[in-house]
Amino acid sequence: MTILLNNDGHWHDQWRRAIERYIPGRSVIEYPDVIDPAVIEYALIWKHPPGDLERYPNLRAVFSLGSGVDYIDAYPTLPDAPIYRLIDINMADDMALYTLYWVIHFQRQLGLYAHQQSQAEWRRYVTPLAPDYKVCVLGQGAIGGHIGQVLSRNGFDVYGWSRNPKSIEGVKLVSGETGLSTTLPEMDVVICCLPMTDKTRGIIDKNLLAQVKSGAAFINVSRGAVVNEPDLLDALDKGQLAGAALDVFVSEPLPADAPFWTHPKVYVTPHMSGATNPDTAVQIIAENMALIEKGGTPQYRYIREG
Amino acid sequence: MTILLNNDGHWHDQWRRAIERYIPGRSVIEYPDVIDPAVIEYALIWKHPPGDLERYPNLRAVFSLGSGVDYIDAYPTLPDAPIYRLIDINMADDMALYTLYWVIHFQRQLGLYAHQQSQAEWRRYVTPLAPDYKVCVLGQGAIGGHIGQVLSRNGFDVYGWSRNPKSIEGVKLVSGETGLSTTLPEMDVVICCLPMTDKTRGIIDKNLLAQVKSGAAFINVSRGAVVNEPDLLDALDKGQLAGAALDVFVSEPLPADAPFWTHPKVYVTPHMSGATNPDTAVQIIAENMALIEKGGTPQYRYIREG
Repeated sequence: MTILLNNDGHWHDQWRRAIERYIPGRSVIEYPDVIDPAVIEYALIWKHPPGDLERYPNLRAVFSLGSGVDYIDAYPTLPDAPIYRLIDINMADDMALYTLYWVIHFQRQLGLYAHQQSQAEWRRYVTPLAPDYKVCVLGQGAIGGHIGQVLSRNGFDVYGWSRNPKSIEGVKLVSGETGLSTTLPEMDVVICCLPMTDKTRGIIDKNLLAQVKSGAAFINVSRGAVVNEPDLLDALDKGQLAGAALDVFVSEPLPADAPFWTHPKVYVTPHMSGATNPDTAVQIIAENMALIEKGGTPQYRYIREG
Repeated sequence: MTILLNNDGHWHDQWRRAIERYIPGRSVIEYPDVIDPAVIEYALIWKHPPGDLERYPNLRAVFSLGSGVDYIDAYPTLPDAPIYRLIDINMADDMALYTLYWVIHFQRQLGLYAHQQSQAEWRRYVTPLAPDYKVCVLGQGAIGGHIGQVLSRNGFDVYGWSRNPKSIEGVKLVSGETGLSTTLPEMDVVICCLPMTDKTRGIIDKNLLAQVKSGAAFINVSRGAVVNEPDLLDALDKGQLAGAALDVFVSEPLPADAPFWTHPKVYVTPHMSGATNPDTAVQIIAENMALIEKGGTPQYRYIREG
């Protein structure tokens, strides 16, 4: 039984080691080094090129190595084999801690204190307590819901927005256009966890940003293309937003001449907020493969909408 | 009934407003503008000069505006009136979030990512998951115990050290010299929450730092003088410590020529990790005053040891 591996060129050594450890006795072929497509039974992929999965006649299942599936949404056709999303609670925890870090950063003015350090300036400020600090998580899927719960558990006043009404412990849920327009003007931080779909492309634009309280902060941990980047820069330059922590961008790797790198109000990280951990991911995939071998069906099968 | 106020010169407006709001109808005199010492019934103080409290013949109680009492420990004599420490869960929460922020910072390499931003460099790293990241909280008093619990609740592998054995939920407790020397070599982050006493002065010195795992980080939220600062700088320069987040220093405000300001591995904040919040603090003090007026005794009375 042979596994096709393609993690978009990242950390192949860690993936190979994890596969050897948790799925022992299987051959691994790294894309595109496939000589005989008939040997491939399973594919572990991330940002895999469209049309390739249809080349393997004995493919039994495809495991995406991340929770976001916008790259699969873009495939013109799908293989016959089922595709499974990776939902790893460790990754959701990672993203929640990353988000919490930036919420504390903005709440406690830690950017200002860092600037003061560069000036050898000792001066402190009264900052709002967590229960008086309002944060809104846009998107209440598996990741956004978990982030809201973690922020709430740490004392923040958390709102969650989704298109349709939901119920998540510790999060005040709002839905629809009206829910959004009444909530945004009250928020100290807006966190984007929206999935990337045709409906959400560019949804964070000048109209939405104009509703946000002046001086609020913005955090994006979902997909860059959910944001209209020129509108976001404009909101930062006009002072509508006091700061932004951005982990995702329309174009990744972020081009060297992108204005975000040097913007004084922007923190750039290289799409690392919820990096898939090879060890925990391969354990989940190994369990799912064993389930398939026994005739079972894993959770989180990818279903194309519409 | 008149209140003497002395918060070491900080935020007198906020304190006055909070007193007007939560203890209405009382006169407030700011130290040292006292003309008739006999009118003073209550004193709200922070870093108040030694010997002054004995001047007020009608003093009924003294409320410290912070949890640390090392400035009172240094008084050669104490007034007859009881002194109460301020234990405010909001402040403990604030300190826990501040500490959590720096733990995430070191765990996720956010200093390295900030440096990469300055170089427009897009590169990511596999970082340890929270359950695989070991942090030790030195000192398991009201604040240290709470910090340990919050870190544990957020998924970190938390150890707590105290001189005498204790039991705190979610924290693996170790005690004594042996407990310390077996724990330190395993830790990714060491957090100092020790109270400042004759026994702890300079306890974080080259002998202790030499036991810490090479490449670990250090966070200090208690008192600067618990640390031997030249030894700490030496451990940073030799690479024994990968970084330090310091909120407290032997000399505060930190002098402009102190090497910490410009050290590439050090984050300096101006003793703001658990700043007393005038609103919540005065509410606690107002309740305690009402209790005293009814003949009761508030919690957390300061008792001089030895």
